[in-house]
Order: sequence, then C-alpha cells, then structure tokens
Amino acid sequence: MPTIVVDVMPKAELLDPQGKAVTGALSRLGIEAFTGVRIGKRFELTVEGEVTDEVLATVREVADEILSNAVIEDVVGVEVVE
Amino acid sequence: MPTIVVDVMPKAELLDPQGKAVTGALSRLGIEAFTGVRIGKRFELTVEGEVTDEVLATVREVADEILSNAVIEDVVGVEVVE
Repeated sequence: MPTIVVDVMPKAELLDPQGKAVTGALSRLGIEAFTGVRIGKRFELTVEGEVTDEVLATVREVADEILSNAVIEDVVGVEVVE
Repeated sequence: MPTIVVDVMPKAELLDPQGKAVTGALSRLGIEAFTGVRIGKRFELTVEGEVTDEVLATVREVADEILSNAVIEDVVGVEVVE
C-alpha cells in the first residue's frame, strides 16, 4: 500500500526547548559537530489503492488542520514514498 | 549551514497508540482515505562547515545511540538536505 510521509517542524522563529536539550546533551558527551538540533514529527499515512490528486489534497488538508498546529508548527514536507 | 535530517519511526511490529488515535480521529471526522497512520520523530541537525564522511558517521552514531531507542524505534533515514 502506498505511504505518504508528512513532515512537521516547529516554526523556525520559535524556541525549541527539546532541540536545545539534545544540543546540550551532545556537547556534554563531547560531540561538537552540531551547531543546533530541531525536533519535529514525521507521519506515515498508508492509503488503500492509488494516490490520486484528490488523496494528496486530502493529505495536505489533514496535515495543515489536524496533524500540525498552525500557530507553532509548519508542514515542511508531503511526499509519496512507496 | 548544511542541515542533516534524521528520521526515526517506531518499529513496524510494535503497536503505535498515537498513530491509532489519529487514525480513529480521522475516521470520526469522516476522512476515510487512510488505512493507517504511524507517528515518528524528525530531527534537523545543523552543521558548521562541510558535511564530510566523518560528520555523517557521527550523525549515524548519534542517531542510533542518542536520538532513537533501538528497542522500540528504527532510524529510517539520514539525509543531507541543504
């Protein structure tokens, strides 16, 4: 069955406390390669049958209105992967 | 600055209660297009300077040992995006 991936990230201008915590933990472990870490959500939606334009439109609507909070998050990707 | 995206998903064989909840909510809203939803994490790691093989090796190590819990999650993607 085809899978559609929706990627949601916190808005760039917002503080990302989880990301900051991971960045701090990495440097305490001596891993200095990264200047920043941001953490978001990855949704995999499985679809019965073909991925039509109508299905993709539904995915975008669901992504904007249900899978993300438009006040603090951005939908950064909608991609058919299988 | 280059960004490396790490995608982490719950292991396929494990129950994904969050995903089940979203699937249920969608069908209650009359959205029947999706047979399943799985929810994971998306990390964006920003790097100073070039993304060398060494940096990528560090990212894979960090992804496996810090950003994911190998007992219940799989790292499903490591990708340089910028």
